This record gives sequence, structure tokens and C-alpha cells, in this order.
Amino acid sequence: MTEANSKRRSLSGRFDGASSETLDAINVSVGFDKRLWRQDIEGSLAHVDMLAQEGIISSRDASQIKQGLQQIQEEMKRGQFEFKASLEDIHMNVEFRLHELIGAAAGRLHTARSRNDQVVTDFRLWTRERCDLAIDAIQALILTLLDQAESGIDIVMPGLTHLQTAQPITWGHHMMAYVEMLGRDWGRFRDARQRMNECPLGAAALAGTSFPINRDHTAQSLSFDRPMANSIDAVSDRDFALEYLSAAAITSMHLSRLADEIVLWCSDPYQFIRLNDAFTTGSSIMPQKRNPDGAELVRAKTGRITGSFIALLTILKGLPLAYSKDLQEDKEQTFDGADNLELSLAVINGMLQNLTPIKENLRQAAANGFSTATDLADWLVREVNMPFREAHIVVSDVVKLADKKRLALSELPLADLRKIYGGFTEEAQGVLSPENSVKSRISYGGTAPARVREQIAIWRETLT
Amino acid sequence: MTEANSKRRSLSGRFDGASSETLDAINVSVGFDKRLWRQDIEGSLAHVDMLAQEGIISSRDASQIKQGLQQIQEEMKRGQFEFKASLEDIHMNVEFRLHELIGAAAGRLHTARSRNDQVVTDFRLWTRERCDLAIDAIQALILTLLDQAESGIDIVMPGLTHLQTAQPITWGHHMMAYVEMLGRDWGRFRDARQRMNECPLGAAALAGTSFPINRDHTAQSLSFDRPMANSIDAVSDRDFALEYLSAAAITSMHLSRLADEIVLWCSDPYQFIRLNDAFTTGSSIMPQKRNPDGAELVRAKTGRITGSFIALLTILKGLPLAYSKDLQEDKEQTFDGADNLELSLAVINGMLQNLTPIKENLRQAAANGFSTATDLADWLVREVNMPFREAHIVVSDVVKLADKKRLALSELPLADLRKIYGGFTEEAQGVLSPENSVKSRISYGGTAPARVREQIAIWRETLT
Amino acid sequence: MTEANSKRRSLSGRFDGASSETLDAINVSVGFDKRLWRQDIEGSLAHVDMLAQEGIISSRDASQIKQGLQQIQEEMKRGQFEFKASLEDIHMNVEFRLHELIGAAAGRLHTARSRNDQVVTDFRLWTRERCDLAIDAIQALILTLLDQAESGIDIVMPGLTHLQTAQPITWGHHMMAYVEMLGRDWGRFRDARQRMNECPLGAAALAGTSFPINRDHTAQSLSFDRPMANSIDAVSDRDFALEYLSAAAITSMHLSRLADEIVLWCSDPYQFIRLNDAFTTGSSIMPQKRNPDGAELVRAKTGRITGSFIALLTILKGLPLAYSKDLQEDKEQTFDGADNLELSLAVINGMLQNLTPIKENLRQAAANGFSTATDLADWLVREVNMPFREAHIVVSDVVKLADKKRLALSELPLADLRKIYGGFTEEAQGVLSPENSVKSRISYGGTAPARVREQIAIWRETLT
Amino acid sequence: MTEANSKRRSLSGRFDGASSETLDAINVSVGFDKRLWRQDIEGSLAHVDMLAQEGIISSRDASQIKQGLQQIQEEMKRGQFEFKASLEDIHMNVEFRLHELIGAAAGRLHTARSRNDQVVTDFRLWTRERCDLAIDAIQALILTLLDQAESGIDIVMPGLTHLQTAQPITWGHHMMAYVEMLGRDWGRFRDARQRMNECPLGAAALAGTSFPINRDHTAQSLSFDRPMANSIDAVSDRDFALEYLSAAAITSMHLSRLADEIVLWCSDPYQFIRLNDAFTTGSSIMPQKRNPDGAELVRAKTGRITGSFIALLTILKGLPLAYSKDLQEDKEQTFDGADNLELSLAVINGMLQNLTPIKENLRQAAANGFSTATDLADWLVREVNMPFREAHIVVSDVVKLADKKRLALSELPLADLRKIYGGFTEEAQGVLSPENSVKSRISYGGTAPARVREQIAIWRETLT
Repeated sequence: MTEANSKRRSLSGRFDGASSETLDAINVSVGFDKRLWRQDIEGSLAHVDMLAQEGIISSRDASQIKQGLQQIQEEMKRGQFEFKASLEDIHMNVEFRLHELIGAAAGRLHTARSRNDQVVTDFRLWTRERCDLAIDAIQALILTLLDQAESGIDIVMPGLTHLQTAQPITWGHHMMAYVEMLGRDWGRFRDARQRMNECPLGAAALAGTSFPINRDHTAQSLSFDRPMANSIDAVSDRDFALEYLSAAAITSMHLSRLADEIVLWCSDPYQFIRLNDAFTTGSSIMPQKRNPDGAELVRAKTGRITGSFIALLTILKGLPLAYSKDLQEDKEQTFDGADNLELSLAVINGMLQNLTPIKENLRQAAANGFSTATDLADWLVREVNMPFREAHIVVSDVVKLADKKRLALSELPLADLRKIYGGFTEEAQGVLSPENSVKSRISYGGTAPARVREQIAIWRETLT
Repeated sequence: MTEANSKRRSLSGRFDGASSETLDAINVSVGFDKRLWRQDIEGSLAHVDMLAQEGIISSRDASQIKQGLQQIQEEMKRGQFEFKASLEDIHMNVEFRLHELIGAAAGRLHTARSRNDQVVTDFRLWTRERCDLAIDAIQALILTLLDQAESGIDIVMPGLTHLQTAQPITWGHHMMAYVEMLGRDWGRFRDARQRMNECPLGAAALAGTSFPINRDHTAQSLSFDRPMANSIDAVSDRDFALEYLSAAAITSMHLSRLADEIVLWCSDPYQFIRLNDAFTTGSSIMPQKRNPDGAELVRAKTGRITGSFIALLTILKGLPLAYSKDLQEDKEQTFDGADNLELSLAVINGMLQNLTPIKENLRQAAANGFSTATDLADWLVREVNMPFREAHIVVSDVVKLADKKRLALSELPLADLRKIYGGFTEEAQGVLSPENSVKSRISYGGTAPARVREQIAIWRETLT
Repeated sequence: MTEANSKRRSLSGRFDGASSETLDAINVSVGFDKRLWRQDIEGSLAHVDMLAQEGIISSRDASQIKQGLQQIQEEMKRGQFEFKASLEDIHMNVEFRLHELIGAAAGRLHTARSRNDQVVTDFRLWTRERCDLAIDAIQALILTLLDQAESGIDIVMPGLTHLQTAQPITWGHHMMAYVEMLGRDWGRFRDARQRMNECPLGAAALAGTSFPINRDHTAQSLSFDRPMANSIDAVSDRDFALEYLSAAAITSMHLSRLADEIVLWCSDPYQFIRLNDAFTTGSSIMPQKRNPDGAELVRAKTGRITGSFIALLTILKGLPLAYSKDLQEDKEQTFDGADNLELSLAVINGMLQNLTPIKENLRQAAANGFSTATDLADWLVREVNMPFREAHIVVSDVVKLADKKRLALSELPLADLRKIYGGFTEEAQGVLSPENSVKSRISYGGTAPARVREQIAIWRETLT
Repeated sequence: MTEANSKRRSLSGRFDGASSETLDAINVSVGFDKRLWRQDIEGSLAHVDMLAQEGIISSRDASQIKQGLQQIQEEMKRGQFEFKASLEDIHMNVEFRLHELIGAAAGRLHTARSRNDQVVTDFRLWTRERCDLAIDAIQALILTLLDQAESGIDIVMPGLTHLQTAQPITWGHHMMAYVEMLGRDWGRFRDARQRMNECPLGAAALAGTSFPINRDHTAQSLSFDRPMANSIDAVSDRDFALEYLSAAAITSMHLSRLADEIVLWCSDPYQFIRLNDAFTTGSSIMPQKRNPDGAELVRAKTGRITGSFIALLTILKGLPLAYSKDLQEDKEQTFDGADNLELSLAVINGMLQNLTPIKENLRQAAANGFSTATDLADWLVREVNMPFREAHIVVSDVVKLADKKRLALSELPLADLRKIYGGFTEEAQGVLSPENSVKSRISYGGTAPARVREQIAIWRETLT
């Protein structure tokens, strides 16, 4: 045990023996919670301000404390602050330094406060900031997707189900599917942010305090909507972090789907897109490779962020109230989750800005696989009033014939069509071209360029 | 392959060979998706209504189809409908029966629709209903907690940190901590419900349709706020189920904490509560046992619901658009999650209604463990203006003395207190009783009965 | 509460009040634990045999009990046994029926036993059986893979990294990669089986018993290697189920990789394989689709089995010893995990038996993407002693040239090669054909057919 | 992009554009994979040795390379090596420095090797070491548990089910339950170590190599049992890390149960144990607290390690062969899992060495809760041949009476016993003392001190 550590121990009074190094190794948190330094000082400044205003400490003490805190803030900004593991956590590091700087008055800062409400205030401020960052990054990504959608609004490509060609769609329409997913992610982070925006400061250890504190004052100083309404809950619960992580995990899953498609679209048999050099990497042994590493890593991050969510949820399961040290494990999970979510959003955004759809390959793939078979079935239903299930069977025969002749559906002579069903017309033949197929799907939310254009406009308006 | 299955196959036209029994075993979903029968028929009724109104099918066909569907609905309600595995899923079972009942017209129901948008409409309707059930059950549980809080508003009990006596609190205050947690859960389900309340019907296979359908009409018939804006997203995404499950997992985690406390409170050394016979079970070998099985099972369910969330998230990770059969695994996870969440909420609600706090044991435990040490430290800071850290040290000495004399803090003679610090007065001694401690913590959200009463009133108003 | 349930309650003596229906809903397990009927009776038969042999009960009682149990066994086999939820679990159902059949002597069966050791014995027997089934199914799948490997031993295909063509490999070599993975899975289940093969029976409630039981006797009757050495551990731990599930999750992950490849290989741009009709399904709206549904579902099952593992691990986390009711949640997770693992193994096995690699497409894809670039670099290092990093640069220039001329590497004229590096010879040009590349990779474990043949032989020997 | 980075890029030849900073941020791994420096150099030394011995490179080049590598090793040991993010990973950092030190010959080191087999060799070596550390740490913890068991072999304590007093057991017996769990964990790590002990080096990128390498030679140099048998599998699979993490998660779950008990036993109503100051911490606001923080953190770590396992499993799910960049996410998960497992094992070991059972409290708790009720029931069955279920009912009445009279069972006068059942004798009364109860449970694995002593002896022998 170092000197400072024994000092802390002796300050806390009751212990005669030294803390074990093993215990220190698991217990000391400053190695990671120093990331909360900005929030810790911000919270203390709000607290001391309120203490002074309510007359709980003198304004002279308050002003000394504030000056001290501001100096520490400067030291930290400049990277000159020396964090000591012996002082265990960010809070004791700040307080100890404050003592060095201003002496006895430092001891008054902790009035009507506990490490329990202090740490959760810091952590909530931090998580709220990361919500804001996620909201901004999602919005930025949506804007990039809107640009991609707009510039590729009439590029025809195959829509897949089961990874098999199903129906022609457009690049714009496909991009807009991700806009919808990310739009919901955006909403989830906004809801989470609103729900977490309550101030735990003033809950003290767990029961509240007998000092005449003003919790509205500190809540307002820290831009919270209101103080939390139950002091036990304030120090015990971590669902704000869980909700952040669950929104992050779902967002990341959405990104993993796009990432998987990018990897697929870059593969040799597909060649649906081209990525700029800025977003590909080479191989040490195979000089010809252009690897979409960024997309692969984004795909993998879903596992990582999911792991963080599960970790924290498992940690909280079955914990009796109020604070238990188990809660200290909340931070690294959330830090890691947030870092990796933001990185994933930035990488996908960058990739999309550096990615060009290869029109001719997309078009050709859209024509393969008998992708307009449904259009022909729909034509039968619509124009000759055939029940859908019957139409399905007629079209199956058409597909079989095209397959046998190794032709695309739109290449089948009308005569052949008529052998199968006498009522086919040139109009019927027309629905077999991918371009016509795409244009015809004008139902709300459908792939017709006009429909997609409407959605782009709505989203542009929503985001401005 | 059974007869009906070959029929289905031959209907779909293209296959010459028989489906493998092994494939059927993994593929056939009617064993579980028959749970969606109500939603499936509801969705079809809305669809056929719209088709007729828009003139896509004749009103005669529509009315035949509706009569057929209503008859099937009746058969299902009465448990007389025979589900056939050979028909694979709920949709084909309904459609096949419809064909039996009304003949060819049945074939028109599937116009401008695909199994892809049909199944996700059914499943969304189902999940929306379970959101409503969760919202109601959470509200009911909050009301029970408010009753417990009110009737125990001045029962003094120990507030624990690290499972060690920290400060006296009240039963009412403790109950209200769970009200806050569940209040956020309530909000999460309400947000989820609102976000999922968009109608996928009309997305067809993935690209929309060329039929002049009216998606606003079907959305409205099914009480959705609006149609989904992108048809690819509509059939590919399942984040409504994920969001339900993540809210369920967090709620369940909150319940697990209360459940753990109930188990603890029932244990012999604690004996903080008494559970009615209706909520305890016996042992086959130890006749004296009164086991809080319900609470233990609720605690365990957190693992189960978490497992469902993870399962679905992992299933979705990295799936390219649009529909893949992987998505069929969404339902059992969500069904199981919902069933177990609702069961957990009901059991905890029942336990709380059958649980009586044992006042004298709670009071005695609150007096142990030097629980009012902080009150004395606060007195020093507040009344004699001692810096908090110094006060901390003085009080440590008081605790050491009480420990040595095996007395509770409130039992220490004033003379003893004064040996440690001369400025202690009778008033100082007064703060050492748990009752006074509790009354003094009047900060917003604090444990003072007056404060807790305010919160109960606010919640009662919110919920009415 | 039903009649039988009140009977059970009154038997257990201490309860005056009725059990709540809500509690019953969460508590009653016979709905799922009836799956253990075979093991339950097997365990009871072994127990009663031992009790008689040690003189703890009379041989007359024993023989009555055994006859009763055998009759119950028959009733269950024939599906004639009526399981009653009111009797809560499989054990009470059996015991109650035994009482009906043989009267008072039934009461002696539970001597020196508790439901705690009884249920875990049943469940261990069940899990051991499923280990055996998994071991057999994995072995069967390996044999199918060996057949595929053998029949495709010299089919050239592209080896991918980052889903990009990297180097030519053979179908046989690729299949054998999965043999290795499944070989380790096989080992994991064998290890798990061995570790779990200890008998908990005789641990009684948790402390052992004062009856002179012979635990070696029951262990042997039930084909366990030995009795468990600590009675508290015997009734509290479930790591045999966890170890089963973790081996299942890893196996399932391996299957998901193969499944993903099957889906990919079936996609239109790849067309690397053809699946028989028995293992594809159609679409309700797109008659041309041949969907590899089985593979998609196997891919999804990984999420499901992972969810089961997580569920059980989370359930066990932080549970104090010995038995808690939380442990009742062990069974459904393990049942579901085992069912889905076995189904996945069967489906993949079936698919592999119904899957044909399309030689020409594989060969052509292997020639694309400059897949033999490394071979040329290796030639430079090997034959003209160029440092690898230099060779890498020379070959990059060759690739750039081929790319510009839109030629495969093996199509580049020697003259062109020589423009880049004067020392290239015809031999150098020869290494650029995929066939030669594959043959040349003769390092142990490499893709050369001779090497792969060796491995096939080793595995065939291992498995016989 | 920094200078060195562009150098690396230009070396790899094909890229004209610069890599994006965003891509670098997600792609660069040296920040974490530098932890593999020792393994990386070890692997390279083995490789170069083999290359020389097989005549693939000259012995002069080999000796230069070895000297260079050894110098780098020294620089790293002394912390003087400057890791550059611009060089992306540990491998390029070493190779680049080697180039600086020895010039052109450095380029020959990578002959017949790829980053794909290099990184997985490093990582396997690392994981194997951590297996060994886990094995040792588990063994050390078992020894501590054996000491605790031995010194508390006849301390009577309550055995709990449902956290309710069930039957008296001994401290020794309870400790030995954890020995059994950890014994299985020990076995799992040993099995995992054996299964992973195969050498991937020489698999090259994925297909093996045409150089006449000797894989047995490198395998032996690195103390692997044999080379891996399939080069695609060698670079694609990560189940060695998964198996490590699953064993770690299960071990950690076992520790969490002990940790939960320690927290419980330290709580005021229990007071079953006393922890030395070295393993408790204080509170900033409540001077009386002695918090078992170490145990709480160990309990929480289960969530963290579970999260790592899930993360890696989810990352691997559905990845096509062979190497994908997703695999780069394997290391941080495994590093974090291993660090936290080892820390948890050390902390629990330390706590057990600093923990004293408080005999009198344990004994008193064992006498409460009618813990010997089963003993009385067993007496009835054993001595007067009453069927167990009847005995159960008689004893229920005894318990009810004791409860009413507020007496422990052993305090009930014989006369009272006889009012309930006339056949009770003094011997019957004798079985009601916890000490007698414990001594009587002599079945194999039971709580009788003689039985526990046997098990301690067996374990001591196993571990030496």
C-alpha cells in the first residue's frame, strides 16, 4: 500500500490493517473512471454553487473551492494532472488535489453528497453526452444515405430474398431501407436521452440528506430536466446505461447488415460496387486483394456491443438495493460500447461516401433469376382477372420454359408465352423488363423512383 | 411428405422432387405460429376489405372471402380447426381451409400481398398487443407498490449498501424505488409501442406492388398510425421485437432485484417479511420449509428473457436484405419472452399483495450497524461547521467506541460522546435514533415520510 | 387450487392457505419436465433396488414398488399416463400414481432421497443421452463431409479471404476444414460427457443421509462412473448442462458458417452448388425461387442455442448454495438447445448429401481475381531468391497489368511478364494456372489433393 | 496518413489513394495486439530456424534475422521499443524494425508465411499460456479451500435451500462443494489446453505453401503437440479462444456464487464470517462500514466474462471461410476475459485466506429454522419403519408445535414429542441436535466430518 493510500485509509478512520494489493487490483477504478474527469468537476462546481447559495457553506469557502476545481480542470485539460492509483478513483484524486491546493476548505465540498450520488451523476452526464453524439452520428449517416439514394434513384438492382434474386428494385429504394432502420435508432436514442435526463445528485449515500439542499438548482445547472424522485433508486439503478447499450446494440445490428452487404457486393462474383482506396486495404501475401476491412470490422462490432449489453445486464441481475460495488463494472462496458458504436457509425458513413454502385453489373443481375416473374403473375390477376394462385402456376411454367431455353424472361418470344397461356399480349411481355417492373411498383413505400423520391424529401425535411 | 404437403408443392409448381422430412422438421412453423391465428385473420379481413374498396377484386369475391374467414375464425375460437403441419404455417393453413370453404375465390385473397408482409403484419399486431399487456401489468404492479408504500410509510428499516447496514430508511421509500424503476419500464414499452405502430401490409414480397392498393386504408383498419414508408425495410426488419425484448429484459432485471430482496427478507437471519401461504411452497423432505419459490423463479426469468433478446439479436446480425428464412426464428423467442415477462409481473404483483413487513424486525435491524453514523457527521458539519472530512474522523471514533462497548449508537451515553468531541450536545445525541434520522432526510427524493407521501401522490395522479 | 393439489399440500402438512394460481403458473413444471419420465423411473428403479439390497426397505416393498414403476413406465410408453399439473412435477406425478397402484408401500420409495437429488439425477441422465446423440450426429456429419471431400478431391475452387478471391483451393480441402472444426466439437462433447458422468443420487436434500445407502450401487446401475463426491455440490451445480450448451453453441456456430456458405453458393452470382429439390423450398409469390431455407434456419439456430447458454449461465450467476428454485429453469433451456442442435446437425447432413458442387463455375471463379498472384511471388522467392517483400512488389505490377488488359493472370503473355521482370520463364508462367497452384501446395495440411487424401484416410480410421 | 503508413501502403503496391483516418481508427490493432510481442518474436524465431534448416533461406540470412529479432526482443523487454500505429499491427512493427536493423534480409522472414497464420499462432500461444495460468490459479484456490475445509471440518453451520435453513452441515463440507466445482473447471481448462495445442504456422494465407517447409519442426519448437491438419481451418477458426472463454465464464459463475455467499455472510443479520481489513473497504460517508468490495466485484465479473464469450461467438456466427477481418475482434475479448478471470481467482483466493468463520454464529443459525426436522423423519422411517410420507406428516406437527412454543426442535421436551407420536424415545430426541445430525450423515459425499476428511485427502493427493 502506497503512502497516499494509507493516508486515505487512515482518513477513513476505522481500519488498522493495510489493504491487500490483490484487492487494490480489482478495486481501484481510476485507470478507467478518469475518463469522467470533466463531468466530475462540472458536477462538483454545480454542487458547491448550490451549497453556497443555500447558505450550507460560506461563500468564501465556495469561491476557494471553485477556484481550486477550475485549476484542476486546467491541469487535466493540459494533461498535467497526475492520477494516482493509490487514491482509487477519479473523485478522490480530485478531492485530494483540491486539498493540496486550498487546504481545509476542500473538506467542505463533500457536504451533503456521497460518492454514490457523485459517481452516478458523473456517469449519467457522460452517457447523456454519448447519446447526443450517437444522435448526431446517426443523423449524419442518414444524410449520406439520402445522398446515395438520390444519386442512385433509378439504378436498377436485384432485390434479394434468401440471397436469391426476387424482384428488381432500385439502389435508391435499398438505401432508403437503411434510412428507416436508422431513423428508428435515432428515435430510440432520443427517447433514451429524455428518460435519463434526471439528476441523481443530492441522493447522497441512498437516503437523501438532512442538509437544506436545493436539488432543482443542481439539476438545472447540469441541464437535467429535473432531480430524480427517489434517492435509493438514484444510486442503485443503471438502466440509463442499459438503455443506451440496447439502443447501441440494435443500431449496430442494423449497421452489420449493411456491412455484410458491402462485403458481399465487393466480392468477385457480385461486383456491385466499387470502394475507393481510402476504404480498402491490401494483403501481405496476395497483392491483388482489395479488402473491405472496415465493413468486416463494423460487422464484428455488433458482437462486441451486444457483449457489453449482456455484461451489464448480467451484472445487475438479482442485486439487492442500494449501491453495491458490482455497479463499478458499469463504466467500462458502456465506454467500450459507446466508442465502438461511434466508430462503426463513422466507418460506415465514410464507406458510403466512398462507394460507387456499378450500374451495369447491378442492372444485369436484376435481369437474371427471372426476377420479374411476379410482375407477370400480377398482370394476369390485374388484367385478365385470374385468381392469384392460378396465375402463380401459369408463371411457373413460363419460368420453366425460360430456364430450359436459357433466356431471361424479357427475352422470351411472345409466341412462347402464348403457348403457355393464350391470353398473353405485348403489354404482358412489357412487364418483364426490370425497368418497367420497378416503375410499376407505385404502392406507398414501393420501389418506384417517384415513391422513393417522396420519402427522400420527407426525410430531408425531418432532419432540418 | 404427406398428401397435403405434396399438394402445396405442386401448387407452387416448380418442384419435381419431394421435400425432405428433415427439412420439414426445421422448416414447418405452424407448431408455433398458429398462435398468430387471430392476427392472421384480422389482417386478411383488412386486406380483403381494401382490395374490394379499391376495385382490385369484386365485392362478391370479397364478401365470400370474408364469410369464409369469419367461419375459420369461429372454428379456431372453438378449438375445432385442425392445423396441419403439412401446410407448413398458419397462413397456408388458413388459405387452404378457405379454399375448401369457398373454392376459387380464395385464390384472390393473396392478391397484392406476399407471405413476407403478411407474417410480419401478424407478428407486429401480436407484439403490439403484448406491449399493451406489459404496459397494463406494469401499471398494476406500480399500484400495488404504491399501496405497500403507503401502508408502510413510516416503517423504519435498514437501507443497505454492499448488503451492509448503511442508513435508516422507510419501507415506503424502499417500495417507491421500485416504482421509479417500473415507471421507466412503463415508458420504455410505451415508446416501443409507438415506434412499432406502423403497418407493413402492402410491402408485398419486398418491392411493393403494381396493384393500386390503399395502404392507409389497411393501416387504419388495423389501428396502425400509418403504413411503413419503405417496403424492403417492412419485410426485413424485426427491431420492433428486439425493442420489446430489450424493454422486457430490463424490466425483468428490475423484478429480479426485488425478487432477490424477497428471498433475502424471508431468510431466517433476516425475517423482515412474512409471505402468505398462497405464495410459499413446502419441501418434500424438510417439513419446516416455507420457500419463496415464486421470487426465485422470477429472479431466474431474467436469464431466460435475456437469452431471448440475445438469440434474436444474434439471428439478425449480418443478415443481408431483404427477407431470409432466418427471420422465422423471431417468433418463438418473442413468444417466450412475453409469456415469461407477464408471468413474472403477475407473480411479483401477487407476492407483494401477500407480503407483510415485520415492523419490529425491520426497526431493530435499522438500529444495528451504527446506521446513524452519518447523521452525527452531518450534525457536526451543520451545527458546528466542521469540515466534512474531519467530522468523518470524529464519528469513526464514536463508532469504534460503540463497537467496543457493544452498544447501538443511540445507546451511547452523552458523556462518552463528549470524551471524543467536547461539543456534542443532547441534540447531537438525538440524531442517533433511526426515527429521527429518517424524519430528518427531507431533501427532495429523500426518505422522510413527508417526502415519500408527495411521490405517492404524484404517481397516483400520473396513473389515473 | 385443484383437488389433487390440495392433497399434495395437505400431505406436506404445514400449509393452511391455498397456493395461488399465479404461483402455480410459474411453479408447476410437469408441462416440461415430463420429458424426463424415462429417466425418472430408471432412477427410481435403481434407488429401490439399492434400498432393498442394503436392507433399508423390505424386499417385498421393493418388489411392489418395482412392479408399480414398471406399470407406470408402460402407461407412459403407450401415452396412456395422465399427467396432472396439480401434482406439479414429474416426480410427484409418478409417486402419486404409484400410491394409487400399490398403496402405502409407495411411501417408502422416497426414503433416503429428496426431490433435489432425484431431479438432478434425472436431468443428468437426460443430458448424458443427448451428449451421446450429439456425438453420434457429429460423427455422421463428419462421414458425409469425408464423402464430399473425397468425391471433390480435385475440384478447383476459389479460396476466399474477406470474401475476395485469394488463392485456388480444392473442394475436398474446403470440406475437410469443417471436418476439423467438427472433430473438435466431437472432442468437446466427449469430454463433457466424461466429466458429467457422476451420480448425484444419494445426496438427498443437500447433506447426504443417515441411512446406510450404497451410492456405488446406484451409480453403477445407472452407468455412471462413480457417485459425486460432495452432496451439496451434487444438488446445487448445473455445469454439466452449461458445458453441454457451450459445446452446442460452438458446434452450432461452426454449422452457421457452413450454412452461410451454402446460402452464398446458391446465390445467382455464385452458383457454386446445386441443391436437390428435397432441400429447397419455393415462394408464394415468386415462382422461380429455389430457397436454401434449411441452411438459413441452421444459421439462425446459433442465435437460439447461444441464447439458451446465456440464459442458464445468467440464471446461475450469484446463486448461493444449495438448491434454489431458480434451478428449475435449467431444463427448458437445455431441452431447447439439444433439440435445435440435433435438428441443425441433421439438416446440414441432409443438405450435404443433396448438394452437388458445380465444377465449371467453381473452376472459373478460381481463375478470377488474380488468385495465383502469390504463386508467382513464391516462384520469385524460391527460384531467383528474391526477398519476399520485393517479390510482392513485382507481382503487384503484374496484377495491375492483367487488370488493365482484363486478362486472367494465366492468360498474360510471357512477353508481358518479362516487361515487368526480365527473369520470368515459362515455368513461372506455369505457376499461374489454378490447377498447378493447387497441386504445388504440398505443405502438411495444404490444399494439394495428395495432402487432403491423407487427411481423409486419417479421419476414416479415427472414426472406425 | 503518416509517412510510415504511406510507406507500408506503397510497399503493398496496388493502392494509389490514401487510407482514410476513419478506417485507420477501426483497422489499426497495434494498440492491443502489441500484447502479443513475446509470442510474435518466439513464433518468428521458430519459423526462421526451420526455413534455414530446410534450406529455404540461407543460414547467413537466418542468423542475421535471429540476431535482429533478439535485439527487438530486448528493446521490448526494456520498454524501449516504439510501437507505431502507422504500421498497423504488432507483426508489421516487428518486421519494419527488423528492416531498419538488418536491411534486405528482413524481407526473407515472411517467406512461406502470411499474417493470417502468423497472428493466429501468436494468439494461440498467448491463449495457451493463459490456460496454464488459469490451471495454476484454480489449483491454488483449491488448496486454499482445502485448508479452510480442514480447519473448519467440524464447525456446524446451516445448509440452506431457497436461502432457508434446511439441514445442518459443516463448514468443511460447504468449502468442499466449491472444491468440486473448481475441480471440474480445472479439468475443463486442461481439456481446452490439450485441444488447442496444435500449431497453425505454415498454413500461410489459407492454402498452405509450395515451399518445402517442415511444420513438425516449428510445431515442436513452439511446444505444440502437432501441426494443425487443415490450413483453411488453421487460419479461420477461433474455437480455442471460445473454449477458453466458455471455461472462464463457467469458472467465474462458480466464483460468483461463493462471492455472493461472502457478501451475505458479512451482512449484519448473518455475521457468519469475519474478513480481515486487508479485504474490506470503508465508506466516504458512513464510517462504520466494512464492505466486502472484492467479493462484489468478483460477482460482477461473471457478467463481464460472459459478455466476452458472447461477443466472440456472435462475431464468428455465419462468417464464411477463410480469414475475414472480423476475426481481429477476437483478441480484446479474450484478453479482457483472461485478465478478469485471473483477477477474480486471485481475489477470491485472497479473501478465503483472510476470512474466519464465526463458529458461535454459525452454530446458532444451524439450530434455528427447525433444521433437524428431516433427521426426525428419517429416525421414524429407520427405527419404527414408518413410510417416509407418513413420517413427513408427523414431523410437520412437531415443527408446528415447536414454532408455536418458540423453541428449537432440540429444546422440545420429550413429553411434547410423545403427544404427537407415542413412539418417540430419547434416542429420537437425540437426533435433533445439529451436532448429532451432522455426524449421522455418513453416506458417501455426506456432511459427516469423517466423510469430508476423506475427500480432503483425495484432493490433496490429486494435486500433488
